[in-house]
Amino acid sequence: MQGIHPQKSFNEESGQSYTSVRAYTQELCEPLEIEDYIPQPSAEVSPPKWNIAHTTWFYEEMILKKFVPGYKIFNENFGFLFNSYYNTIGERTSRDNRGDLSRPTVKDVFAYRKYVDEKMNEFLKGDLSEDARELVTLGLNHEQQHQELLLTDLKYTLSTNPLFPVYKDNFLPEEACETKVDGFVEFEGGIYEIGYSGDGFCFDNELGRHKVYLHDFALRKQLITNGEYLEFVADGGYSDFRFWHSEGWDWVNQNNIAAPLYWHKNDDSWFHYTLGGMRKLSPEAPVCHISFYEAAAFAEWKGMRLPTEFEWEAASGKFKWGKRWEWTQSAYLPYPNFKKAAGAVGEYNGKFMINQMVLRGASLATPANHSRSTYRNFFHPHLRWQFTGLRLCQNRLL
Amino acid sequence: MQGIHPQKSFNEESGQSYTSVRAYTQELCEPLEIEDYIPQPSAEVSPPKWNIAHTTWFYEEMILKKFVPGYKIFNENFGFLFNSYYNTIGERTSRDNRGDLSRPTVKDVFAYRKYVDEKMNEFLKGDLSEDARELVTLGLNHEQQHQELLLTDLKYTLSTNPLFPVYKDNFLPEEACETKVDGFVEFEGGIYEIGYSGDGFCFDNELGRHKVYLHDFALRKQLITNGEYLEFVADGGYSDFRFWHSEGWDWVNQNNIAAPLYWHKNDDSWFHYTLGGMRKLSPEAPVCHISFYEAAAFAEWKGMRLPTEFEWEAASGKFKWGKRWEWTQSAYLPYPNFKKAAGAVGEYNGKFMINQMVLRGASLATPANHSRSTYRNFFHPHLRWQFTGLRLCQNRLL
Amino acid sequence: MQGIHPQKSFNEESGQSYTSVRAYTQELCEPLEIEDYIPQPSAEVSPPKWNIAHTTWFYEEMILKKFVPGYKIFNENFGFLFNSYYNTIGERTSRDNRGDLSRPTVKDVFAYRKYVDEKMNEFLKGDLSEDARELVTLGLNHEQQHQELLLTDLKYTLSTNPLFPVYKDNFLPEEACETKVDGFVEFEGGIYEIGYSGDGFCFDNELGRHKVYLHDFALRKQLITNGEYLEFVADGGYSDFRFWHSEGWDWVNQNNIAAPLYWHKNDDSWFHYTLGGMRKLSPEAPVCHISFYEAAAFAEWKGMRLPTEFEWEAASGKFKWGKRWEWTQSAYLPYPNFKKAAGAVGEYNGKFMINQMVLRGASLATPANHSRSTYRNFFHPHLRWQFTGLRLCQNRLL
Amino acid sequence: MQGIHPQKSFNEESGQSYTSVRAYTQELCEPLEIEDYIPQPSAEVSPPKWNIAHTTWFYEEMILKKFVPGYKIFNENFGFLFNSYYNTIGERTSRDNRGDLSRPTVKDVFAYRKYVDEKMNEFLKGDLSEDARELVTLGLNHEQQHQELLLTDLKYTLSTNPLFPVYKDNFLPEEACETKVDGFVEFEGGIYEIGYSGDGFCFDNELGRHKVYLHDFALRKQLITNGEYLEFVADGGYSDFRFWHSEGWDWVNQNNIAAPLYWHKNDDSWFHYTLGGMRKLSPEAPVCHISFYEAAAFAEWKGMRLPTEFEWEAASGKFKWGKRWEWTQSAYLPYPNFKKAAGAVGEYNGKFMINQMVLRGASLATPANHSRSTYRNFFHPHLRWQFTGLRLCQNRLL
Repeated sequence: MQGIHPQKSFNEESGQSYTSVRAYTQELCEPLEIEDYIPQPSAEVSPPKWNIAHTTWFYEEMILKKFVPGYKIFNENFGFLFNSYYNTIGERTSRDNRGDLSRPTVKDVFAYRKYVDEKMNEFLKGDLSEDARELVTLGLNHEQQHQELLLTDLKYTLSTNPLFPVYKDNFLPEEACETKVDGFVEFEGGIYEIGYSGDGFCFDNELGRHKVYLHDFALRKQLITNGEYLEFVADGGYSDFRFWHSEGWDWVNQNNIAAPLYWHKNDDSWFHYTLGGMRKLSPEAPVCHISFYEAAAFAEWKGMRLPTEFEWEAASGKFKWGKRWEWTQSAYLPYPNFKKAAGAVGEYNGKFMINQMVLRGASLATPANHSRSTYRNFFHPHLRWQFTGLRLCQNRLL
Repeated sequence: MQGIHPQKSFNEESGQSYTSVRAYTQELCEPLEIEDYIPQPSAEVSPPKWNIAHTTWFYEEMILKKFVPGYKIFNENFGFLFNSYYNTIGERTSRDNRGDLSRPTVKDVFAYRKYVDEKMNEFLKGDLSEDARELVTLGLNHEQQHQELLLTDLKYTLSTNPLFPVYKDNFLPEEACETKVDGFVEFEGGIYEIGYSGDGFCFDNELGRHKVYLHDFALRKQLITNGEYLEFVADGGYSDFRFWHSEGWDWVNQNNIAAPLYWHKNDDSWFHYTLGGMRKLSPEAPVCHISFYEAAAFAEWKGMRLPTEFEWEAASGKFKWGKRWEWTQSAYLPYPNFKKAAGAVGEYNGKFMINQMVLRGASLATPANHSRSTYRNFFHPHLRWQFTGLRLCQNRLL
Repeated sequence: MQGIHPQKSFNEESGQSYTSVRAYTQELCEPLEIEDYIPQPSAEVSPPKWNIAHTTWFYEEMILKKFVPGYKIFNENFGFLFNSYYNTIGERTSRDNRGDLSRPTVKDVFAYRKYVDEKMNEFLKGDLSEDARELVTLGLNHEQQHQELLLTDLKYTLSTNPLFPVYKDNFLPEEACETKVDGFVEFEGGIYEIGYSGDGFCFDNELGRHKVYLHDFALRKQLITNGEYLEFVADGGYSDFRFWHSEGWDWVNQNNIAAPLYWHKNDDSWFHYTLGGMRKLSPEAPVCHISFYEAAAFAEWKGMRLPTEFEWEAASGKFKWGKRWEWTQSAYLPYPNFKKAAGAVGEYNGKFMINQMVLRGASLATPANHSRSTYRNFFHPHLRWQFTGLRLCQNRLL
Repeated sequence: MQGIHPQKSFNEESGQSYTSVRAYTQELCEPLEIEDYIPQPSAEVSPPKWNIAHTTWFYEEMILKKFVPGYKIFNENFGFLFNSYYNTIGERTSRDNRGDLSRPTVKDVFAYRKYVDEKMNEFLKGDLSEDARELVTLGLNHEQQHQELLLTDLKYTLSTNPLFPVYKDNFLPEEACETKVDGFVEFEGGIYEIGYSGDGFCFDNELGRHKVYLHDFALRKQLITNGEYLEFVADGGYSDFRFWHSEGWDWVNQNNIAAPLYWHKNDDSWFHYTLGGMRKLSPEAPVCHISFYEAAAFAEWKGMRLPTEFEWEAASGKFKWGKRWEWTQSAYLPYPNFKKAAGAVGEYNGKFMINQMVLRGASLATPANHSRSTYRNFFHPHLRWQFTGLRLCQNRLL
């Protein structure tokens, strides 16, 4: 989904050590039954088995094969099976068919992980070139992205099961209320600097720090809550075309959308499916699992709008964020100085810069050390299986 | 797939004992990894987990709930999860989504089997009513049908895996050559009796023994072999519209069909995927995994035709059969005195009597004791994941 | 739709003279506006312009090019534009795209008709070979089939227009009541002869007169009326799965079918669209525009069944028919001695013998001289834009 | 397609008089046969009959019904038939089914035009309120947009006809060569003003003149020519994934795209279909009928990029434009101060601001007086039936 490009070199002190990142993926797998590793109920959603093999394959394909003389690859077929979308590298399993593969077994895939980990640990003891250090950092950030996807994909898969299985009790604080903070933070028009400028890692789509002119705007301090969203639902928000984009209105009607994903109404009470099972909806928690269309319709109903990604980034120091990915009003497009890297790594971000909208912030499922104010996430406007939410913006100063 | 209706009572001497049938299903599962129980790469193909739960559910739903006072069902949700197509019984998981369910686990489903087996064994010790005996017999025949499906569905699923996994070495004699038998058996026109007339079990669609008038015909003693079929391929059979039904020709072109299912050409040699892995194609073995369209096109190319199901049944004593389900030229329609049973059991066969063609015989995957000359199998004309083959027929006496 | 093969030679005394058949097509076109010649709202439905050009093309392609030395074809492109489905003859406009063609104009197409008529009239004055006479007869019967399609296709197209335009006031007696005739005609089991045996014209699919064995049956003298069908509707026939084939039930639910095609309910009264405009439904008129699924479900609801095509043909002398094409319980399959003709003419009937059901009789839109008791019409079971109805059958003597 | 909102009042001196605009639509219809008014081979493409009725309906619905007391509408059904996408006004014919309507006839629709013209001319003689004057101006600009669509839709429809009909000989100068102008115009980074600021008419999406910061850029003076584009084709541009967006690459492969729309290769020479018929491709004419994907891939192949819409607007005084709509790298999004108008008019532009890319300039089919440097056209990135082209941009000063 996300493209990645390492800007800065691998840094052991960053807390993103190879050992800790790899261990966290395995920790996420602990509650899983072998059966949970297999299904893929929708093309967007990858099976956990594919996820853990693919993140491993990345180190083998991009680092070990390149930097370790005489490296013996674990299994010739895994390149084909676990390549995601790199045309540079060659043919691959169709993205829709990842759930059709029962073999290699989960055990085999963990053996693959172990084999690559051994080789990587040996490799990391040596004297790494700048190029190698960058690729290791990239691999770790790539794996962190897939840690979040592991959870969101799994949630989607389990949610289609009429038994509504529990992944782990009280796992993510989806129910946690927002600390109540009233009001908006206000910004005056002027030139702002946008894009990554630090010494750490970032993806290529954040680079090319550049100026943008922003007009006066005000951004709400708090995310929209379930309670506020319920008012929109109760007010007939899903059945009034005036709030919706034309394609959003088609999406609502063709799919009979009447509430966020995972919401269920039972005897006049709203519940939602979480990784901890079916729970009563908390009005104080931030709304979650909404599409761009829903976010934009809500804002329209409120007489406001979504922020642009530039407004969001310029303002990000003045409010708390990190619980929901926040939809912006910006299409995912290259920054003025965007450059593709050479080779497979160059396929990461640039080729997805069409028909997607930018999300800013991070979600409760984003690994620690994997968020920053310049991070650009992006999805098609109808998708909502990520932990997405919304923050309101207004043009004028209050 | 098949509907079923018990005509005759349960018979312990028949060799179809509850214990032996149930044991054979488990035997078929032995080579499976847990992962193999989950995927469903096509709507026609059920995952093994669903198969073994559904056959168990049948006894619980149709027998234990009805005949055992105070029977405690194993899990309230399983009725919804493992009902196949009985509208009488209520809602069910969509047939397309059986592969999305990771839970209940395989272990849970085998626990369900064990629980139902214990209850059934207790029940079978008692004094069974005629009605109960018929339903037990039906349940066993139902399970035997699903034993064949377990293998054909699994073969399809494994075949989509680029690793071409082996289910079991040298398992089914798919490679076994036909004993060479030249010529045709000839029959004179006249009235023949069609339909089941014995004392054993049969399905409701075989009942209503009745007269049909057949004209002179001659049926080939031997099935068409791979070698003969290769001549059709080599002669451009797949690219000459003259041999094909109009809808068959569309099917060939839309799906780029150029050989039977599971055939692969490698360096000018033909291989085919089997449950024992990828094997060299044997010219002497009967051709397998062809659609009705292919069977009919081959016959047209030969200047002959497929037999009707009535010709086949009338002639069945005069040639060897049982290796391939044999496509006939008959649509699957009710016999003159066909009657639907009352209740859920009545949904078995009658409601499928449209748009399908009859196959006669049995295949190498059909369980012993589960074939007879009056058995009517049926599939849509484009399907070919069953072990299907063909036998030629001619109008005139030779 | 229909395949055709001339059995018997052209006969001027038959009343099917070239002049009269060609004139009747033009008579049917008289009420049309130029705009009506163009639209094709569904792949099954051809625009009138295509219809009148295609029937003309048949004479040019099959007769004039073959038998008239030095014949100069009217326009090289028309072969491509107006070939229906003859692979033997070459490429053609996709059937779905006939409505995309504004050119040639309607005027051009009538000029084409006139040109071909002149050449044909000249040709018919000469001494015709047997072969030629047969093809002329075939061409005339082909055109008569398209006369019926002209009306049914046009009715479908106009029915999609919210203005519900009138083709011609009081045109077809769709509203005409059935003369009330009670009861069933009864037949004893035995061998009956089926298929065409006369000296006149018939299609190849009627040939090969042969024996069939029929069991005792009774056929209702009268077609089912709108009034009787309304009882089925009122009794919840469209929402009770027990009456329906499994695929019929899917069809009902996926398309929200709740009444025959062209029926509209307005303030508790039923209306239906006719070629004379929107009319109140007459309870005494025979029901019309139902699919095979609906016919079979109605019969099931009545505790009866549809006749086979053989029962219908055997009984056809004993009741009045000709107002509705009557669905039978027989799949469209070859007769025992069916033979395809050589060349393009052989593509007519044989290649459609899969997935379609036989209709017997004729409809009020069938041209005079174009019906006989051996005539086999055929359509897919979900289609209902023809003037289709139903007659009940029972197994036992009353 | 386009939304519209009048900013400025109706101005008789603008040259956009009611009489002249209405007359030009009729002039465009002169070469048409009645048949040409009907077909709709693709949902994007409206039939001419719909176009000329819809532009008329706009005056009746938005002006005459509102401002003329006792106005008698021409036909009650036309509101339903000829509403395009205004949910505010009510139900309407599905956009896909406009080609299914043979009635009202073309004659009826011209009678409708005449009736509305009479009422409008009478109305325009009176003393118009500011509100009314704005709506008249809007109606005229709306009609001008549909004049361009009339030609592009008609070109598409005629192009699907194997006869490749001529609309009008030498009609649009599609073949006209670009005057050769070398080089790029260069711009320094800084704040630029974007959006409409004059006294004339503009659409609501151009309003809210605002500042943007642009970095140094250089824009090519001349459009890309067919000759230059042929080099891309010859270099394998359509078969090298590296130049394409991921969704563009899917589009190329799923639709077998290998050249711009309407290009045909014949004996090694390239031809293209024009409204004047099939013509030899002129290497010096600007390339036309390319999608955003193709424009972006071409730029990537050249090592450059498309301009943003802001760069284009800022630079528009320094080069000649108006022959092709020019794809930009900007998604179609609201300007900072974008406001929707109340009522139906508010549905014009805002609801389409998702998943579309902005085009700037005008095409050879755009009516005179209907282009300006702030005009924002927009289409989905795969569409190419408009007269679209491309101009290259570079980041750095040369």
